[in-house]
Amino acid sequence: MPKAKPVLFVTGLLLCGLAALMLLPAAADVIVANPDWRTFVLSSSFTGFVGVSMTLASRDDRPLQLDLRQVFLLTAVSWLFLAAFAALPFINLTIQLDYADAFFEAISGLTTTGSTVLVGLDTMPPGILLWRSLLQWLGGVGIIVMAILVLPFLRVGGMQLFRAESSERSAKVVARPAQLVAYIALIYFALSAACAIAYRASGMSFFDAINHAMTTVSTGGYSTHDVSFSAFQNPATLWISTLFMVLGALPFVAYIRTLQRWREPIWRESQVRGLVGFLVLFSLAASAWHAVSSGVSFVDALRLTLFQVTSIVTTTGYAAIDYETWGALATGMFFFLTFMGGCTGSTCGAIKIFRFQVLSIMARSYLANLLRPHSIKVARYQNRPLPDDIAPSVLAFIFIYLASVAVLTLGLTAFQLDFLTSISGAATALGNVGPGLGPIIGPAGNFSSLPDGAKWLLSAGMLLGRLELFTLLVLFQREFWRW
Amino acid sequence: MPKAKPVLFVTGLLLCGLAALMLLPAAADVIVANPDWRTFVLSSSFTGFVGVSMTLASRDDRPLQLDLRQVFLLTAVSWLFLAAFAALPFINLTIQLDYADAFFEAISGLTTTGSTVLVGLDTMPPGILLWRSLLQWLGGVGIIVMAILVLPFLRVGGMQLFRAESSERSAKVVARPAQLVAYIALIYFALSAACAIAYRASGMSFFDAINHAMTTVSTGGYSTHDVSFSAFQNPATLWISTLFMVLGALPFVAYIRTLQRWREPIWRESQVRGLVGFLVLFSLAASAWHAVSSGVSFVDALRLTLFQVTSIVTTTGYAAIDYETWGALATGMFFFLTFMGGCTGSTCGAIKIFRFQVLSIMARSYLANLLRPHSIKVARYQNRPLPDDIAPSVLAFIFIYLASVAVLTLGLTAFQLDFLTSISGAATALGNVGPGLGPIIGPAGNFSSLPDGAKWLLSAGMLLGRLELFTLLVLFQREFWRW
Repeated sequence: MPKAKPVLFVTGLLLCGLAALMLLPAAADVIVANPDWRTFVLSSSFTGFVGVSMTLASRDDRPLQLDLRQVFLLTAVSWLFLAAFAALPFINLTIQLDYADAFFEAISGLTTTGSTVLVGLDTMPPGILLWRSLLQWLGGVGIIVMAILVLPFLRVGGMQLFRAESSERSAKVVARPAQLVAYIALIYFALSAACAIAYRASGMSFFDAINHAMTTVSTGGYSTHDVSFSAFQNPATLWISTLFMVLGALPFVAYIRTLQRWREPIWRESQVRGLVGFLVLFSLAASAWHAVSSGVSFVDALRLTLFQVTSIVTTTGYAAIDYETWGALATGMFFFLTFMGGCTGSTCGAIKIFRFQVLSIMARSYLANLLRPHSIKVARYQNRPLPDDIAPSVLAFIFIYLASVAVLTLGLTAFQLDFLTSISGAATALGNVGPGLGPIIGPAGNFSSLPDGAKWLLSAGMLLGRLELFTLLVLFQREFWRW
Repeated sequence: MPKAKPVLFVTGLLLCGLAALMLLPAAADVIVANPDWRTFVLSSSFTGFVGVSMTLASRDDRPLQLDLRQVFLLTAVSWLFLAAFAALPFINLTIQLDYADAFFEAISGLTTTGSTVLVGLDTMPPGILLWRSLLQWLGGVGIIVMAILVLPFLRVGGMQLFRAESSERSAKVVARPAQLVAYIALIYFALSAACAIAYRASGMSFFDAINHAMTTVSTGGYSTHDVSFSAFQNPATLWISTLFMVLGALPFVAYIRTLQRWREPIWRESQVRGLVGFLVLFSLAASAWHAVSSGVSFVDALRLTLFQVTSIVTTTGYAAIDYETWGALATGMFFFLTFMGGCTGSTCGAIKIFRFQVLSIMARSYLANLLRPHSIKVARYQNRPLPDDIAPSVLAFIFIYLASVAVLTLGLTAFQLDFLTSISGAATALGNVGPGLGPIIGPAGNFSSLPDGAKWLLSAGMLLGRLELFTLLVLFQREFWRW
């Protein structure tokens, strides 16, 4: 069994951080004189107390060192604990959720999924709204750090391809992890600030601009309005949002590399070109079809289509329109886009572009090999030979991903949810996207009416997807718990 | 470019055989004095004329020899030609279909899919009904021969694992292909005869027994009644059907091996145990749930559930009840079962058991490897090390399969079909199963009301699935057509 002490120590520290963060929405509610601030302070005190206790109880004089199993355990435990405590304020605010709903809202926030059980956002006090946005913003940077520092080291789902040190010249991008985290935080903060300023300039209120900037750059998708981006009529707002969703979906290591060496621009990365190329080409085709079939102008169609496609592919989940009214083809299209995801090392969930690229390399080399049985062709990715262990990792990942969608779908149908709600709910939870399809959880709907059991299932799905499946699944191996 | 002559020669011979077969339904209609016999004779003459012409025009004095590309081409071309000509009678019979419908019905028959566009089967003349059953019966044996002799040689989708000569003692199962085909035909005929006798004994009419025996052993699923197996109220009939669907879904090479060496019983094959074990365990669990939730007796629930699960998993597609009335969970369950399939080297379509077994071996070895990065464990299947080229083949197959379902689904939604109809229609066509889900093409429905474009798409899907994808897809590679 892996020793739990260092795991509890770090988790305790993270809880202390969460407790401090809860004071921000408290302050917001104090400003507007809403009594909700008491709940935030109470939750903060309790979370801080547990955090400090855990830290003190498990502290050790030796320097902190984690082995492989402890890193797996820490990754899973820390997300679970953060969500469990982040849910506390929701229980006793103006809205008064039960714990299933509160946990759902918290984990949907932290995993940057963006599915919500809240109705009446437009009239809610600022504390709740800010807390939701903060959870996504915090979750977003947590994911980037995890995806760059932890998961490649754990060799999860082919992410060893992106070990931070394996740059093209085999030189480390930055010398030390702490420095890397600082770079990431800096870029993340700069992007968020730029996004907020741009939103404000396009006509959003100051509060909306701050909140949406946090949920855009984190590709989270929580909004301060029930109707999401339908609330913003200025075309510029949609373009800004599209741009920053894409920027949040790009690999942060590539930003750092570009900052350090201008000769290596970010679009030299295969996954960046894959994502941007796909978004542009697919949206152009879809807008042409949409413009022809519904009679709107091509520019209007392109703005909405590019926004919606970007929103789903980057796993943000904003809706500027109920796209299911576009017809059966749109429903089918957005269902499959739910599986896609942006670049790894960003805030995106779902399967992610590089896995599809590896997959297509494998499929093409297989097809070529059928006709020339004895030729051996080395598969290449990003102008380098693809390491031997990548393909099986990537393929195992995609299979377990699809199998998880299937299991989750069956679980949801067991609560008598219809097929479209179940399968799109499963896909949107695992992919950390946000909206599902159909009248209940579709872009014009909401997760509030689902039975509690379904909410717990979806919560588990969000966490499983966020931890790239294997980080959670190894914990269920008997070998993991051996002494 | 591969030389077309030998391909045309063999296809011509097959058309001559098809022409001869058309005389059987003609005879049936003559017996009941139905004028439809003229259409069959006319179709037979035309098909025979084309077949003889092709054979004569492309005959060669040298012995017939096919290279790799010609085998690929022949496999695709022969199925397409057979379906195109098998559709002819449907155009001018009592029923008068247009060519899209006729081709759909013919290819659904030949590929042993069993989706139908015909309504009013119960009152149709015997010629039409017999022709549909014959197409499935012929298709069934064609598939077995192809799956045992051709596809492993083409190394399609991991089927090289089942090269007929690679028995456990590296001795050939039988010495020559002709002998192998004779064995297969003998076993196929014996199973069909036994099935017909058993059906008759359980109370079916003589005509029904013959027809259903042909569509049971071929795991095809055409019935002579609109309501399919709901027409047969005797419990014994369902049990017999379940048994023979399973027998049709077992690998025919294993039958031959068991016949030759009694010490190697058929259940020693991993895929046989996988299939039977899955059917029994899954049906027991599902019946228990069904019995508890709906209040029917466990035995009644088991009989129906085992029949329905077997019908979908073996890709037969009979319906003894509208199982969608069992609730949302049943709908979800039968959707995923559509992907499964029985054993390779049988009449089954879809992904097939052995690919799931290889997949689970890969996934488990991957998961174990996460915790012990430097251990090397050889993956084993059927007590032998899994050859290196199997895993990529199998994985490529499953991906292209799922991608094809996605593309086909989008194609169907473009005809304004709803999501459930589209995705279940795509899955049932690719898997050669038969019924889809939802009110239109579900177990209580029918494909007749779909637009022609959707029927062509589904026809293409059936052929693609039947040819294990790659046999068709290599034809779209530029390299294939190089001189």
